[in-house]
Amino acid sequence: MNAIEQKPQESLQESLQQVQRLIARHKLVEGLVHKQDMPKHDLVETLVHRQNLVELQHKLDLLHPADIAHILEALPLDERLLVWDLVKAERDGDILLEVSDAVRETLLAHMDSDEILAAAEQLDADEIADLAPDLPQAVVHELMDSLDKEERAQVQSALSYDEHQVGGIMDFEMVTIRDDVSLEVVLRYLRRFEELPNHTDKLFVVDKSDILKGILPLKRLLVNDPDMMVVDIMAQDVVTFRPEEDAGDAAQAFERYDLISAPVVDKQGKLIGRLTVDMMVDIIREDAENEMLNLAGLREDEDLFSSVWASAKNRWPWLAINICTAFVASRVIGAFENTISSLVALSTLMTIVAGIGGNTGNQTSTLIIRGLALNQINASNARRLIIKELGIALLNGLVWGSVMGLIAWLLYKQVSLGLVMMAAMVLNFQVAALVGIFVPLTMHKMGRDPAFGSSVLLTATTDSMGFFIFLGLATAFLL
Amino acid sequence: MNAIEQKPQESLQESLQQVQRLIARHKLVEGLVHKQDMPKHDLVETLVHRQNLVELQHKLDLLHPADIAHILEALPLDERLLVWDLVKAERDGDILLEVSDAVRETLLAHMDSDEILAAAEQLDADEIADLAPDLPQAVVHELMDSLDKEERAQVQSALSYDEHQVGGIMDFEMVTIRDDVSLEVVLRYLRRFEELPNHTDKLFVVDKSDILKGILPLKRLLVNDPDMMVVDIMAQDVVTFRPEEDAGDAAQAFERYDLISAPVVDKQGKLIGRLTVDMMVDIIREDAENEMLNLAGLREDEDLFSSVWASAKNRWPWLAINICTAFVASRVIGAFENTISSLVALSTLMTIVAGIGGNTGNQTSTLIIRGLALNQINASNARRLIIKELGIALLNGLVWGSVMGLIAWLLYKQVSLGLVMMAAMVLNFQVAALVGIFVPLTMHKMGRDPAFGSSVLLTATTDSMGFFIFLGLATAFLL
Repeated sequence: MNAIEQKPQESLQESLQQVQRLIARHKLVEGLVHKQDMPKHDLVETLVHRQNLVELQHKLDLLHPADIAHILEALPLDERLLVWDLVKAERDGDILLEVSDAVRETLLAHMDSDEILAAAEQLDADEIADLAPDLPQAVVHELMDSLDKEERAQVQSALSYDEHQVGGIMDFEMVTIRDDVSLEVVLRYLRRFEELPNHTDKLFVVDKSDILKGILPLKRLLVNDPDMMVVDIMAQDVVTFRPEEDAGDAAQAFERYDLISAPVVDKQGKLIGRLTVDMMVDIIREDAENEMLNLAGLREDEDLFSSVWASAKNRWPWLAINICTAFVASRVIGAFENTISSLVALSTLMTIVAGIGGNTGNQTSTLIIRGLALNQINASNARRLIIKELGIALLNGLVWGSVMGLIAWLLYKQVSLGLVMMAAMVLNFQVAALVGIFVPLTMHKMGRDPAFGSSVLLTATTDSMGFFIFLGLATAFLL
Repeated sequence: MNAIEQKPQESLQESLQQVQRLIARHKLVEGLVHKQDMPKHDLVETLVHRQNLVELQHKLDLLHPADIAHILEALPLDERLLVWDLVKAERDGDILLEVSDAVRETLLAHMDSDEILAAAEQLDADEIADLAPDLPQAVVHELMDSLDKEERAQVQSALSYDEHQVGGIMDFEMVTIRDDVSLEVVLRYLRRFEELPNHTDKLFVVDKSDILKGILPLKRLLVNDPDMMVVDIMAQDVVTFRPEEDAGDAAQAFERYDLISAPVVDKQGKLIGRLTVDMMVDIIREDAENEMLNLAGLREDEDLFSSVWASAKNRWPWLAINICTAFVASRVIGAFENTISSLVALSTLMTIVAGIGGNTGNQTSTLIIRGLALNQINASNARRLIIKELGIALLNGLVWGSVMGLIAWLLYKQVSLGLVMMAAMVLNFQVAALVGIFVPLTMHKMGRDPAFGSSVLLTATTDSMGFFIFLGLATAFLL
């Protein structure tokens, strides 16, 4: 008996490094061959050249599609396409499903219609629907023609929902049974399958119009007497989803109720599809990542090795907004140029007031954004939250305001300057807390992602208000 | 036949609101009773009072433990404890496992030893180990004494690993079989179980020393002929984990290979535990959340309704660091006070240079942090990344530097000021790109979470360098 094979993920980092080494060697030899203008007699080098590629291809054949996808993500464009060409055509479809949108675009751009068609034909209806938006129109049409009637209907159904809806991510591989048979009959029925769909942890019990009556978990099928009837064993309190529901909400439900798969039903209760936990895990990861990217002011997922030009454009919208807000904040200072010229120390201290305000506001807004994402904040508890955050801001403002006030006093030997510094910090902490709460709450009420833009709006306000409060107080009390 | 029950998560938001309404009504009545100094004759109000609590308790009894946990998270402390007292004692354990660490502390602080013991005794060994670090020492000892020998060994094994290791999150509920029996025998064996452990999608095939020989997926058990032998059907290329492995890496493997459960084996290949996807989903979510909290400068998960004092302390370490860095940046300005007093316009423009630098650096570091989290960055491709990011920074610096240079020129009618502005922005964009790459990379090399502190270090550098470059250039060329 063989021992258990080496588990693949232990060597994923190593696999990447091996592939990188093989590519480097290949490039080196190719460079030599090119330099010598390809002398046909130099068989050794041509052989070495081919040998490297064969070794690389062999390495790739041994890898799981998800691991190849991972490696493709980590390679610069030229090396990525070299690897992509070496991957066996019948695995293209699976790998395309695993890579990120940004990397998928680079791969598809490199394939001709026939290659894309061949790759897509390996896939199930729901997977074709996932890829379709990234494919050229002509290829999609040809692909649809190649499907049978049922599959075409499934692809069209999936395409009628967007990818943020349950209908856009459900699959159609369900095992359905009737409730008036015995478990023995179900067991015999299952043995007629070549294999069961992935993530089958339950069978769906439907009537003859496909109306969902309940579910039969495999766990129950296996522990109960084969003479029992499905109707007596099946569970009827089923978590079901509607195709128009939000995919993120469905993912949270999967997480909360520890589901592996769940039925999707239409308004009449008819079973039309199935959700599985693997999709939900992807959604949870992607949602969290997008939130982070949005917070940093990146429009969308960025290929690590996209061109400078494409990356720069991805970052422009937010930089442009930031330039505007920074300009407004600087005009606030501009309005006080007379004050500053009579007391230059102000120009030094004002940046502290503004900077710390932005930082404390970001802490508040991050907690609010997280609470909103987890559906923990509503009208009834928002007031308590606001009072709490203002309280923290007052406490922190007094503590750190005193510290900085003291330092300002010591630095510039002027008590009044220290007092103005402290007052400005206390006030700007209050502004930061209010903005940190209300910007995400308002975004959320308007139906937008609260992470999107919160940070920029917040810093814009704490900067401008910080300068205004500090320089305003200085103008009033120090001149 | 009953129709499928309403699915629970459709009403989770409503459940929270209903609970909040019932609490509000209860508090109102209680307020009235108190105001009248509890006149014993006023039966009506006492009855209403009790009626409210009964209704609330009934509502809670209908909810899934995960939903009660969700509601507890969203309630301020006094209301949370009111609800917690109404929850049936036998559900306490399950709910404690579902709430966040911060909320769990508030609930445990409110329970006496007997209540905690009663709650913990409902749990499996791995769940007890999860709770143990939050429990008083005396309770843990008493709890350990109440376990049988096998369970005690399991709890001790789980406690010997930390929660970031596979050994700390694995469970012990495995169904094991031998390889020399027929599927028919396996099916009969399974029927002797009351029920199978949650997330059982495969049976573990072991020899008599518990060495893992393979796995038998339920899918294969069900579609194959009962006369076949386990050894002929089982899979031997199994993804296994070691107890000392990083839990986050295991979660990524679950995501990559779409696993539901996987065996944990020791060095000798002996089966010692099992990982399940529900735990992995929690880890993926928590890792993503912690990254976001760290980026915002929050030390750890914060209960939405923790006291002002506790929250303020959670935010202090980072605020303190920020105060220091802001102070350093302001001293950089201080060094140029003479320059500023001869050209006050500089105090206005310098904040733009610094602010935009911080923003663009954050974009870079977010992408690097994400690439590191996904294991996509290593020594071979880091150089390409650095060149790419410097390229983007140059392009963006030239574009936005020109825009701001032009604006500075128009505002202050001084070409040289515009040129200094542009040069400073181009240079600070380069600084931001370099810091945005090297801070997370260095953190990662030192074995630290790259998200932790990156943002503060980044802004500290872009601020100080922004001021230094701009004011330095101005001193050199404008005075």
